[in-house]
Amino acid sequence: MIPSNWYNIVPDLPVPPPPPLHPATREPIGPDDLAPLFPMELIRQEVSQERFVPIPQEVLDVYRLWRPTPLMRARNLEKSLGTPARIYYKYEGVSPAGSHKPNTAVPQAYYNAREGVRRLTTETGAGQWGSSLAFACAQFGLECEIWMVRASYDQKPYRSALMRVYGASVHASPSSVTQSGSKVLAEHPDSPGSLGIAISEAVEAAASADNTRYALGSVLNHVLMHQTVIGEEALAQLEEMPDVIVGCTGGGSNFAGLVFPFLRLKLAGEIDPVIRAVEPAACPSFTRGRYAYDFGDTAGLTPLMKMHTLGHDFVPDPIHAGGLRYHGMSPLLSHMYELGMFEAVTRSQTECFEAGVRFARTEGILPAPEPTHALAETIAEALRCKESGEEKVILTALCGHGHFDLAAYERYLSGEMEDFTLPQERIDEALSGLPA
Amino acid sequence: MIPSNWYNIVPDLPVPPPPPLHPATREPIGPDDLAPLFPMELIRQEVSQERFVPIPQEVLDVYRLWRPTPLMRARNLEKSLGTPARIYYKYEGVSPAGSHKPNTAVPQAYYNAREGVRRLTTETGAGQWGSSLAFACAQFGLECEIWMVRASYDQKPYRSALMRVYGASVHASPSSVTQSGSKVLAEHPDSPGSLGIAISEAVEAAASADNTRYALGSVLNHVLMHQTVIGEEALAQLEEMPDVIVGCTGGGSNFAGLVFPFLRLKLAGEIDPVIRAVEPAACPSFTRGRYAYDFGDTAGLTPLMKMHTLGHDFVPDPIHAGGLRYHGMSPLLSHMYELGMFEAVTRSQTECFEAGVRFARTEGILPAPEPTHALAETIAEALRCKESGEEKVILTALCGHGHFDLAAYERYLSGEMEDFTLPQERIDEALSGLPA
Repeated sequence: MIPSNWYNIVPDLPVPPPPPLHPATREPIGPDDLAPLFPMELIRQEVSQERFVPIPQEVLDVYRLWRPTPLMRARNLEKSLGTPARIYYKYEGVSPAGSHKPNTAVPQAYYNAREGVRRLTTETGAGQWGSSLAFACAQFGLECEIWMVRASYDQKPYRSALMRVYGASVHASPSSVTQSGSKVLAEHPDSPGSLGIAISEAVEAAASADNTRYALGSVLNHVLMHQTVIGEEALAQLEEMPDVIVGCTGGGSNFAGLVFPFLRLKLAGEIDPVIRAVEPAACPSFTRGRYAYDFGDTAGLTPLMKMHTLGHDFVPDPIHAGGLRYHGMSPLLSHMYELGMFEAVTRSQTECFEAGVRFARTEGILPAPEPTHALAETIAEALRCKESGEEKVILTALCGHGHFDLAAYERYLSGEMEDFTLPQERIDEALSGLPA
Repeated sequence: MIPSNWYNIVPDLPVPPPPPLHPATREPIGPDDLAPLFPMELIRQEVSQERFVPIPQEVLDVYRLWRPTPLMRARNLEKSLGTPARIYYKYEGVSPAGSHKPNTAVPQAYYNAREGVRRLTTETGAGQWGSSLAFACAQFGLECEIWMVRASYDQKPYRSALMRVYGASVHASPSSVTQSGSKVLAEHPDSPGSLGIAISEAVEAAASADNTRYALGSVLNHVLMHQTVIGEEALAQLEEMPDVIVGCTGGGSNFAGLVFPFLRLKLAGEIDPVIRAVEPAACPSFTRGRYAYDFGDTAGLTPLMKMHTLGHDFVPDPIHAGGLRYHGMSPLLSHMYELGMFEAVTRSQTECFEAGVRFARTEGILPAPEPTHALAETIAEALRCKESGEEKVILTALCGHGHFDLAAYERYLSGEMEDFTLPQERIDEALSGLPA
């Protein structure tokens, strides 16, 4: 019941997405530009025109540790809301690292190992991606070196401990072991770090060492494609087709993983669900960002990607959904959003935690702060159905558990959690730093 | 595939277990003695002679949130050991609270709610039981009040946060809200607490309030019976019958839950597996305790139960497997151990964490410290098979995840974890306090 192929939506799109550009030449980048960072098979997948890419047996053998993941009807939640809507959730928290991230960490580690790479570097914010890659590297005998955003490193010591249990080495970022980290530290010795800075460090470390490559946990086409196992499984598991599909978006991979297979059927005219991305009000790249070429990191080491961005200098307020605190967005999803293939809304932090607590008390599972955004929107949709009497089928992506986020829940329960308003001037200022 | 009955092993035993006694009269206690603490249906189940007890539909509807749990072949672990043994594990960590405990918390909350109880009290050590009962109470609209051993309360703030997310109120024990807690605090203001003290507090609070009952997470017959869903599922899931079954024992419910259904077949002469309990070297009730009548708590508020005990005054060294730090043992299991129905061994703390790290790196799941005892013995058995060339089938109980135990793993990885030796004099001294 685990799918045997990943689904690549790119060839099915009515218009191809704009290519990434070399920052100096402004020309589309080629495989050679990416070779210092990624193994050839992943570069090939990044630009592939194959609709279905077979999942290697070695990857399936690891997926089997937790896949297929459960698709559940949230009957208790429905009852507590008194809604005629039928709510289904696809739960990725049963994976070793507790989220959807191992779905791509495992193939990334596998292809690197197969091409003779010995060590992978990466960055991590909340820690989900770092622990996923650490797990995947342990499976294929690779070393793993991780730069973890300093604020998370200090607030969530158990996340780095989990990475170490899996055998990885972990630095707080900014660190003194890279030039880009040292530069930040020289100017801001107490810097709390950011995903953009941590990406710069991990990219620099990979590019400057032998047999070492870099791995990214979201944003890129091949990452989104690996996540389509979520949606393919859901398609096979569902007894009725959804009218509404809801997922949260940070870099976009969990959302894409659930919705791409449904979009295939929608593009073919077989179904017509409303598809909705939910982003935090504090980091609203789809809804308030600009669709423009920008860097994926802070130091400007990555190619330029056309995406919805708040500017690579943008530092989001410290909401607890660390996985959604990213200035940019998947270029592929950004392109599809421009094509009108799905809609996007925002939710504030406290209404998300309220949804998380309600979900825990009814369905048992404690959700990570990221998918509480999808849950808050799902609950709002279900309440609209209560109002209208519509028996809609709602499918939502519950992409991870919140076992490492209980300090945030405690804060919410004690009434100390704050919502942030994001003045337009802050966005305008960050966007003014976009590359010319 | 969820069983429709719990299995009650008592009527299948060749000799009935000795009854609990009233501490004052030394006469067997009757239902009236237990009525202030438990609802009648659970008292009935505690002394039932029915072999199979139907699981109510309302309980099945909650079990469905996570059951059936996975039964997995640990192929990667086998490969890393180079053993010809085939290792299977039954994984209970997918439950809302992350362990096997909700299997009994849910029916306990259900029967109490059905009989009009409004509030449940309980104690918790490491926090698994407390969060399980908090979850179960949320399902049936009961209030939940929990006394958590002070040492764990301080070391594991996220566990009490989880209980609060589920809606429970949590006290550090010893607390000033009960007489037994106040008495301990008067003598030892800095007391780190113990399970025995916390039980005294929860029992006192239940006995002295209206519409309030007490719930126990292990030890008692009805608790062990509720856990047999684990073994019944495993029997249905396994493709080959085990030669060896291994589980860890604190109060005994996880072990009993897995092995009782297999013992039914063994008693019927259909299979003949070796069955092995594993306890911590720091708290060895089966292997170094005395089989005698003793109290279940420290203050002597419970009935006297004949069991393997280290003495109700015994305070185990601070190993990280909080769920195994209990002076006594299930009276039913103690009786069966005396009948020779299974064997018992001990494992030290560092070899257990070594097994836990190996399991995480090969199978992906981070085990709780309690089931690492079973894993350490499973690995030792698999290595004996490697020596002898025997292709044994080993089944082990992986009763929970270690997401709240990463501070302990960090300690192990940094080389700072200690093993404890338990001098015979300490056991002798504690046993000298047994009731005459």
